[in-house]
Amino acid sequence: MQKQFVTIKELYRNKEEYIGKTVKVAGWIRTSRASKNFGFVELNDGSFFKNMQIVLSDEKLENFKEITKLPISSSILVEGELVSTEGAKQPVEIQATNIILEGESDSSYPLQKKRHTLEYLRTIAHLRPRSNTFSAVFRVRSLTAYAIHKFFQDRNFVYSHSPIITGSDCEGAGEMFRLTTMDLNNIPKTEEGHVDYSKDFFGKEANLTVSGQLNAEIMALAFRNVYTFGPTFRAENSNTVKHASEFWMVEPEIAFADLEDNMELAEDMIKYIINYVMENAPEEMEFFNNFVDKGLIERLTNVVNSEFKRLPYTEAIELLQKSGHKFEFPVEWGCDLQTEHERYLTEEIIKGPVFVTDYPKDIKAFYMRLNPDGKTVRATDLLVPGIGEIIGGSQREERYDVLLDRIKELGLNEEDYWWYLELRKFGTATHSGFGLGFERMLMYLTGMQNIRDVIPFPRTPKNAEF
Amino acid sequence: MQKQFVTIKELYRNKEEYIGKTVKVAGWIRTSRASKNFGFVELNDGSFFKNMQIVLSDEKLENFKEITKLPISSSILVEGELVSTEGAKQPVEIQATNIILEGESDSSYPLQKKRHTLEYLRTIAHLRPRSNTFSAVFRVRSLTAYAIHKFFQDRNFVYSHSPIITGSDCEGAGEMFRLTTMDLNNIPKTEEGHVDYSKDFFGKEANLTVSGQLNAEIMALAFRNVYTFGPTFRAENSNTVKHASEFWMVEPEIAFADLEDNMELAEDMIKYIINYVMENAPEEMEFFNNFVDKGLIERLTNVVNSEFKRLPYTEAIELLQKSGHKFEFPVEWGCDLQTEHERYLTEEIIKGPVFVTDYPKDIKAFYMRLNPDGKTVRATDLLVPGIGEIIGGSQREERYDVLLDRIKELGLNEEDYWWYLELRKFGTATHSGFGLGFERMLMYLTGMQNIRDVIPFPRTPKNAEF
Repeated sequence: MQKQFVTIKELYRNKEEYIGKTVKVAGWIRTSRASKNFGFVELNDGSFFKNMQIVLSDEKLENFKEITKLPISSSILVEGELVSTEGAKQPVEIQATNIILEGESDSSYPLQKKRHTLEYLRTIAHLRPRSNTFSAVFRVRSLTAYAIHKFFQDRNFVYSHSPIITGSDCEGAGEMFRLTTMDLNNIPKTEEGHVDYSKDFFGKEANLTVSGQLNAEIMALAFRNVYTFGPTFRAENSNTVKHASEFWMVEPEIAFADLEDNMELAEDMIKYIINYVMENAPEEMEFFNNFVDKGLIERLTNVVNSEFKRLPYTEAIELLQKSGHKFEFPVEWGCDLQTEHERYLTEEIIKGPVFVTDYPKDIKAFYMRLNPDGKTVRATDLLVPGIGEIIGGSQREERYDVLLDRIKELGLNEEDYWWYLELRKFGTATHSGFGLGFERMLMYLTGMQNIRDVIPFPRTPKNAEF
Repeated sequence: MQKQFVTIKELYRNKEEYIGKTVKVAGWIRTSRASKNFGFVELNDGSFFKNMQIVLSDEKLENFKEITKLPISSSILVEGELVSTEGAKQPVEIQATNIILEGESDSSYPLQKKRHTLEYLRTIAHLRPRSNTFSAVFRVRSLTAYAIHKFFQDRNFVYSHSPIITGSDCEGAGEMFRLTTMDLNNIPKTEEGHVDYSKDFFGKEANLTVSGQLNAEIMALAFRNVYTFGPTFRAENSNTVKHASEFWMVEPEIAFADLEDNMELAEDMIKYIINYVMENAPEEMEFFNNFVDKGLIERLTNVVNSEFKRLPYTEAIELLQKSGHKFEFPVEWGCDLQTEHERYLTEEIIKGPVFVTDYPKDIKAFYMRLNPDGKTVRATDLLVPGIGEIIGGSQREERYDVLLDRIKELGLNEEDYWWYLELRKFGTATHSGFGLGFERMLMYLTGMQNIRDVIPFPRTPKNAEF
């Protein structure tokens, strides 16, 4: 049955083909108003951000009264003529000649015309995609995901799925969710009285991944250029607007490539994504710019047109100190940059996107390549105006001995890294990669301020509804 | 540094541009042989299934001896002239003038030239992507994933991420992994002595999803046409070649669409994927056809060129009974079709892909639309030669009362489905969808017989290594 219904997007985008013709559309009533003999329905069919105005007249419609009384969100099948309405708010409308009720809604439908808070809308996550805001957010989410795939596939990158279930916390990047099939009321114990994980599903402890990077390195050292794009998890009990327990990460990994290649790739990718979304979702971006974040389009356009700067951490610290600006957290060499520092750097000092490079090794992960100074590593964070850090990456330590020393120095268990070390033994190569938090990127693209509002069904502490 | 190295894929695809010119490539030595003054290296750089032959000569290379002695899988940076070799096995080769050793491998490198069993290769999952077979499999995996995205995005479908962590087992589709952050050595208990899930991370039981469908229905009833594509999990303790604990599923969901639309979409998608992979990975497909599954390309070509048939379950049962064929499991109305039945239907009776429709309600899920006969539901499985079922789908029960009756009839907890029921209350619409097991599709495309060999890092009972 679907083919008989042309999409509202098609009617907007190619209206010349349809004006004066009889068309059929199917959708949900967003708003409805009527006088005695005439009425108007704003119909949304999900294919497009904008609604189609349906003109109802008692004269042409047998069931005029019935249709005008339908509650918001009822679904209807409409037949009528597409008519040009030059000068009106919308370029076309449909003068209905036949309307069939598909599914009548109820007057208790919670998404009435009045504005709701974003907090309230989270409690009706099964209905909020029908609101303007979330219709725009989730369509942009889809386009952004595709832009990422297209960017990498066009460049011959291999998409590799890193496993979600991991046997150990190799990254040490945060608290993890444990996975089990044991009966929690009756946990098998060893003779010593400890949990007997050998009886569990995988025969040992198993957790949800916090990053797909280490597995991506395996693939990069076979396929040269690869990327992962999948869900990752953090069991942190933090209730902030930036943290979710489940979120998606994009992690490219490139071989025979150093940190410069890595930064160029990140810059190209960010610009590509922004351009793709602005080209493919102009109505949504205009909506965000008007109703969510006034300077959005200008800020994104600036990013696309700017050349991203490079700034060593040591110089960044000096610039922050010299600025005379009073920060909540003091600035000194060795400290991790706080969001306030990052934003001051990119917004006030550099006035544009900037890669800060070569951080102190003590605040970065074990796998980052040690610089000749012995103090810093070949890491980089990309800072952008309006948000601070959006990407973190590094050139990886490709030297077996140096990597092993770092693992020992940090008290990590060498055996857990046997295969990661072997990558450095059997034809190691200079390689680099970075991670982009997908939701972080979406917040940047849409201006939405809470990560819960760019994920269809967010998971946070005490919340796994829907 | 990466930009200076042209990819081997580029040199093969656009060889005319490079012949006679000096080029630089970077890659890993796959094989190497040398006489006193001459040598040959088969170099693979991961960008392409095929190797580039590097010609070494003592006369042109300072480090000729050193290079010829390098163990397999060493990585090298090569400079030399690309030369046409008409009539030889490969169309071009590089006559090296300068080679820099990037990473020397070790003579203990386990992937030597001799053939290894697939079982053994699974134990070195960090190195097997460097073998011919897995280089082909994982490149096809990447292309297949992209084909799926491209198919749906080109048709204006919205990609929606269904949550991985779920608060309840709403689908009842199989055993689930439980997720917890509680200390298993010291589990909080209620006064009654049960596990106190209110103390757990999400304040209640949480599991890994077995399907993204129910959430996809939410999105379809807002965006008309959507798809999910993400990891799903089964904690089944089954050690078969078809089962993995972690696998990816593609689940489109379409509104104002009945089972006919659903079948057309599935047919279009399967044909699109096959065509895309055959066009974009001809070398890999030829390899599979020659070394993994002799009839592969012919079988896939037949699928692309055939019109998928439709066959009601009741007729299918009659045909199987009339066939006179002796099956291990007896065939009678009401039974679930076994793989032997499915394959006999598609391979011997229909001789091509076939949608079996309208299964008995008792062997299908609660959400499938009840037919007027009261006995069958508007379900369909797509059966294909060589494998049996590859897709399962249905028109969804869009009638509130009928759905509620089914939920009660099956003894499910109505409250768990509050939002799923509400979708039928606030503007319900005819809608349909199906699920494609991504790895099942990959096995069909490659001829690989074990699901562990189409997943980079497979998870199965007692196995979560890498």
